[in-house]
Amino acid sequence: MTKLSSDSIIYISEVMMPHKANVAGNIHGGEIIKMMDSAAYASARRYARSNVVTARIDEVEFHLPIMIGDLVTCTAQVVYVGTSSMEVVVTVDVEDLEAEGKKRALSAYFTMVALDKKGKPAHIATLELKTPEEEKAFAEGQKRYEIHKQRKTR
Amino acid sequence: MTKLSSDSIIYISEVMMPHKANVAGNIHGGEIIKMMDSAAYASARRYARSNVVTARIDEVEFHLPIMIGDLVTCTAQVVYVGTSSMEVVVTVDVEDLEAEGKKRALSAYFTMVALDKKGKPAHIATLELKTPEEEKAFAEGQKRYEIHKQRKTR
Amino acid sequence: MTKLSSDSIIYISEVMMPHKANVAGNIHGGEIIKMMDSAAYASARRYARSNVVTARIDEVEFHLPIMIGDLVTCTAQVVYVGTSSMEVVVTVDVEDLEAEGKKRALSAYFTMVALDKKGKPAHIATLELKTPEEEKAFAEGQKRYEIHKQRKTR
Amino acid sequence: MTKLSSDSIIYISEVMMPHKANVAGNIHGGEIIKMMDSAAYASARRYARSNVVTARIDEVEFHLPIMIGDLVTCTAQVVYVGTSSMEVVVTVDVEDLEAEGKKRALSAYFTMVALDKKGKPAHIATLELKTPEEEKAFAEGQKRYEIHKQRKTR
Amino acid sequence: MTKLSSDSIIYISEVMMPHKANVAGNIHGGEIIKMMDSAAYASARRYARSNVVTARIDEVEFHLPIMIGDLVTCTAQVVYVGTSSMEVVVTVDVEDLEAEGKKRALSAYFTMVALDKKGKPAHIATLELKTPEEEKAFAEGQKRYEIHKQRKTR
Amino acid sequence: MTKLSSDSIIYISEVMMPHKANVAGNIHGGEIIKMMDSAAYASARRYARSNVVTARIDEVEFHLPIMIGDLVTCTAQVVYVGTSSMEVVVTVDVEDLEAEGKKRALSAYFTMVALDKKGKPAHIATLELKTPEEEKAFAEGQKRYEIHKQRKTR
Repeated sequence: MTKLSSDSIIYISEVMMPHKANVAGNIHGGEIIKMMDSAAYASARRYARSNVVTARIDEVEFHLPIMIGDLVTCTAQVVYVGTSSMEVVVTVDVEDLEAEGKKRALSAYFTMVALDKKGKPAHIATLELKTPEEEKAFAEGQKRYEIHKQRKTR
Repeated sequence: MTKLSSDSIIYISEVMMPHKANVAGNIHGGEIIKMMDSAAYASARRYARSNVVTARIDEVEFHLPIMIGDLVTCTAQVVYVGTSSMEVVVTVDVEDLEAEGKKRALSAYFTMVALDKKGKPAHIATLELKTPEEEKAFAEGQKRYEIHKQRKTR
Repeated sequence: MTKLSSDSIIYISEVMMPHKANVAGNIHGGEIIKMMDSAAYASARRYARSNVVTARIDEVEFHLPIMIGDLVTCTAQVVYVGTSSMEVVVTVDVEDLEAEGKKRALSAYFTMVALDKKGKPAHIATLELKTPEEEKAFAEGQKRYEIHKQRKTR
Repeated sequence: MTKLSSDSIIYISEVMMPHKANVAGNIHGGEIIKMMDSAAYASARRYARSNVVTARIDEVEFHLPIMIGDLVTCTAQVVYVGTSSMEVVVTVDVEDLEAEGKKRALSAYFTMVALDKKGKPAHIATLELKTPEEEKAFAEGQKRYEIHKQRKTR
Repeated sequence: MTKLSSDSIIYISEVMMPHKANVAGNIHGGEIIKMMDSAAYASARRYARSNVVTARIDEVEFHLPIMIGDLVTCTAQVVYVGTSSMEVVVTVDVEDLEAEGKKRALSAYFTMVALDKKGKPAHIATLELKTPEEEKAFAEGQKRYEIHKQRKTR
Repeated sequence: MTKLSSDSIIYISEVMMPHKANVAGNIHGGEIIKMMDSAAYASARRYARSNVVTARIDEVEFHLPIMIGDLVTCTAQVVYVGTSSMEVVVTVDVEDLEAEGKKRALSAYFTMVALDKKGKPAHIATLELKTPEEEKAFAEGQKRYEIHKQRKTR
């Protein structure tokens, strides 16, 4: 059985309320990563049709501060699939609702593992690659996956 | 100056975590209305390019219970515009991430008022109607607006 | 078996803390409706002596902004009763604790449905009407109930 | 200028939602004290018509566990007044909404200090005692106040 | 079986974020007591190796206001042990991270009761006293315990 | 001016309450990263004596699920320092309070940037290296820093 990467696309979005501000008055980085983790969770869970847990997060890089009142949208998509683990790319776009246009605030890679009812890793469908972009993203995900695996076994 | 209804479309979405459950274990209705209010706020604020406040909410009707783990998506769109007030239709769709398909859980009408920097009602752009559906939604919004106005002046 | 409307009166009240503020710095409308929903829930649950869920909310109309530090009191009372549904009127009063007097900030009608242990609609006690005010409120609730019912069957 | 103790009575009440539960599944004691502190704050602030802070809390004694779904009502009243400090008695009653009757769950004494705009202790109105109960409560409050004062100066 | 007081020492610490502020803009006293209660809970639970509940809190005395951005550390330690109840001393230190040094902000005594799986009071290990300070703290805890007991039986 | 790495050590710890659980009932990964981010923030802010923001997070790897009721302790320490950026290593240990011993649950690298009052990058003290472990950690942090820099300029 195969599945499409595009079927795993999930949007999680929220208007940033003041209770998510940090000491300096802009939005707490930890709140944004929590939203990204929710998006990765939803995307992987829809792909695997089972419970999933976060195993790794890499290359979280903040480009822009996020302000109270901004509309923040996290987009998550499964790009690489192993036996029971998935790599989900999560990007975050920010919109000041009183001005034109969105800006890319950050992105990161989440490795999620599918679990069966007993909490053991579950087999998941293979990814059907449709476009050259999907093939490229898959190859890059596979490369990152293998680097982490090598480090562990060393 | 005119604006398009379609430019005001906002999606607010979230995976329902256990801390939003009510006593019976499914999602607290109040949490859903809070999300809908956020979506109406974002849609009206993007339309008006100013601060906005909620003035009225009508015809909130729950069709389905919402469960922990569901992906809830609120879609908000400005459909009727007066001098400084807007009617925003908010619909809520629910997806069980481990099963196929979305379901409409509820909808409601939010009346939002644009405010200037001093907190006084602000003039907003008129709505440019493009399709017969938009014209119909505008006419219905106008009708509701006039019914509320009559009641007040009585 | 009958019950009194006055036995269903519930007060839910809270001092508004800064984490409930919206982007403009006053209290988020969604937080107020969440409190009102809690009051309607408590009133209907005490009346029905069973679990209850929110089915509809109508005519939420905000008259006043609510500020950080205000004492907000929601008063909920069952005014109309069908076979398994109840209409609860919820009013919200606001007091600036450093000044004299309370002000009515908003009110709304909540339709709540009693559920048995299996989640099916449960029969509830009929309402014993004692005063002309209670009779009037019952008649108005019944009228709203029938309007919604007609719309649905159409 | 004098004020009545009865004018300082404040009710703070809430239905206990699952996100306030502790590890064992009943309501976290810390959440209840936070509610009591809010009630003491509101009562003292209404009495002093100024900002107030919590200085001491004594004799918090839990008699009953509090469960998810219970209606919790904190009643706060100023019973003793010094130059700029007030003693507020806070009692907590609990009602299982699906059963008859309320039960006293706990009570405590809060010492609150009135502050002026610069954060310095502010003079407050003296307490006009109307009933023998109020006189007794005042005398007891005064006694506790003097015990704490002695300990400090030792 | 005996246990050491020093094995029960628990640190609970947090940077104070703006959503914990009160109306005046510094940290809500109720939030601090909630943290202290968590620390007492963890200390007693580690001592008793069973579920525990808060039975009493005494002599909570705030010496300093706590500000947004401060690092707050609660230190909890079991100092007196009865058959199934423990007295836990909780102290709170505050550090302004942009300045030198910590300050003692408050302290309090928490009486915690160990519960078995059925919710009945559970027997706990006796406290092995190692130092004169521990013996003094034990004697003082015992004295407070007996005063409360006498009051109850009167 | 130089500073010691050991002076930047910060502990952030909390008992995991049920409202931080995810859909499967154990603790939400996003909540843990939010705690880690708080620890990194506190450590870097104490080192720099100025406001700091999160710029990057890398190699977050979860080794163990974290359960409701566990005591979670994040330890953060500045190990590498550039002109205005710091690398903070954050480790997370988990203790089941009803059993013996702590376990390492995860670790990650946080890059934090010091900001002056105008929000511009601020110069920070150089790190005085005392032990071979500190020298090794510094060299590794420098290597990671240069890899990220190269990628950006490419």
